[in-house]
Amino acid sequence: MQELIDRFLKGDRRAAARIISLVENNDPEKQDILSKIYSSTGKAHVIGITGPPGAGKSSLVDRLITIFRKNNQTVGVIAVDPTSPFTGGAILGDRIRMQEHSSDKEVFIRSMGTRGSIGGLTRSTREVISVLDAFGKDIIIVETVGVGQSEVDIIKAADTTVVVLTPAGGDGVQMIKAGIMEIASIFAVNKADLPGVERTMAAINMMLDLDCGYSWRPPVLPVKSLHNEGVPALVDVIQQHREHLLETGSYEKIRKEKVRQEVLGLVEYKIKSEVWSKAKISKDFEKIIAEILQKTLDPYTAADIILKSVKN
Amino acid sequence: MQELIDRFLKGDRRAAARIISLVENNDPEKQDILSKIYSSTGKAHVIGITGPPGAGKSSLVDRLITIFRKNNQTVGVIAVDPTSPFTGGAILGDRIRMQEHSSDKEVFIRSMGTRGSIGGLTRSTREVISVLDAFGKDIIIVETVGVGQSEVDIIKAADTTVVVLTPAGGDGVQMIKAGIMEIASIFAVNKADLPGVERTMAAINMMLDLDCGYSWRPPVLPVKSLHNEGVPALVDVIQQHREHLLETGSYEKIRKEKVRQEVLGLVEYKIKSEVWSKAKISKDFEKIIAEILQKTLDPYTAADIILKSVKN
Repeated sequence: MQELIDRFLKGDRRAAARIISLVENNDPEKQDILSKIYSSTGKAHVIGITGPPGAGKSSLVDRLITIFRKNNQTVGVIAVDPTSPFTGGAILGDRIRMQEHSSDKEVFIRSMGTRGSIGGLTRSTREVISVLDAFGKDIIIVETVGVGQSEVDIIKAADTTVVVLTPAGGDGVQMIKAGIMEIASIFAVNKADLPGVERTMAAINMMLDLDCGYSWRPPVLPVKSLHNEGVPALVDVIQQHREHLLETGSYEKIRKEKVRQEVLGLVEYKIKSEVWSKAKISKDFEKIIAEILQKTLDPYTAADIILKSVKN
Repeated sequence: MQELIDRFLKGDRRAAARIISLVENNDPEKQDILSKIYSSTGKAHVIGITGPPGAGKSSLVDRLITIFRKNNQTVGVIAVDPTSPFTGGAILGDRIRMQEHSSDKEVFIRSMGTRGSIGGLTRSTREVISVLDAFGKDIIIVETVGVGQSEVDIIKAADTTVVVLTPAGGDGVQMIKAGIMEIASIFAVNKADLPGVERTMAAINMMLDLDCGYSWRPPVLPVKSLHNEGVPALVDVIQQHREHLLETGSYEKIRKEKVRQEVLGLVEYKIKSEVWSKAKISKDFEKIIAEILQKTLDPYTAADIILKSVKN
């Protein structure tokens, strides 16, 4: 295993792919690996790209990769598909399009998805970000089909979050809810050749101006990712946001908060795993369930009983 | 507090509303109340109504309530709005429409939403289902703006799940993903006066027929909730599904699995709360975070250290 880590730290792509797979599959060696590569993390700028299905996120990511590469920055991309029943139609096609960068050795693209819990996916995504960070990628782009709270949780791992909307389908008005204001660093109004782009941008700006006292007021940019218009300007603003974070000390604060969340998340996860494994093998647990079904016990009292036994 | 429970068990609506508020606000008395009313639960038929925004779920729920009431069944409605940034445009208007039933004392409607975690909302929703069940409602309808895994988790609390789609916007093809096949007991294709309804229904049926060996093959029904067409047929099928669950013993299995999940969920929740409260007051925790930021410690080793301290 040490040999795998050594190869990884020397920049071996296959070693990186292997480690990501071990992380995704929750391999028993995972913790040991992540623990050993941890000291190499903390250098990457993590950019979240989110927005409703069909907003053109993947083609935008594609254009962003090209620009970052021209600037001699190495790029990791994590495309998250939470296999939501109501979303994710174009995932496969988008991934295929992005493969034009796959011959570039400094671009590492990985799709992630799970049938398991969103909590599990959020954790895995953060872990894969760590792996790509330790692998030395300057930029890590996390793309999510943003349609729910779960995706917002995933995107919170980013330093800079770009929310992609379009003038179509009333995105501008319907989709700007309070939750997104908190996570957006930048708004990109894509497909800016469609009618209604001015109105959409005005609506977003109006919503943003309801708030005040920003230390960073999210800019609203028109882009046409298909025609590569506005994308260089977007990259400039992403860079400005990064500088803003560094200058104001926000970067440090964000990092600290992330570490805090990560550690507590890990503790919770470990305890949960223990509860489940203990509960599954316990005969007492089956007896407790039977009693609850007979209404001679209630779930709340039962939880207290189990809690005591887990602690011993 | 016993007085509140007594009034509740006698059918006092204000006591029910008060108890639901205590549950939603995670009041310290919550556990005691839920524990005491638990023996009155287990009689209601829980119907989940889910589907993408704009599918006409609320007007369908409205029609369903009317029919259940004609059949002399009492009804509880829980409308879940996970305040997702990308969803939930019409929530308020829908709720207002449903208020025509609010003068009916046998109909209890409650909107739920949270800024907190989806995990928290899933738990609260299940608890409010328990409360309405103990309150004696024959039918409990849980309506969710179904756009993500999180909503699927919420809807898993239902005995019968109706997935509402429309012929518009490619719902039929794009939205039928594997995840939804597992949770749907019945498909209702709403707005069946729009063009493309035949094709949408055919597409759903084709997807369903890819699977085989159903003990219950989800029927696909056309409805026009605005014109009240097809809704009585939907109610019949819901009733048939309930009978199917009872006859095949699935009901019992589902109940058992739900109790199992509920108890383990409660244990996890209690442990998590404890971890957070302990971690927040601990000076050691701040020291650990600082060490991780300096890379002299990694989050994985740190989690193990904290885990040990929580257990003591």
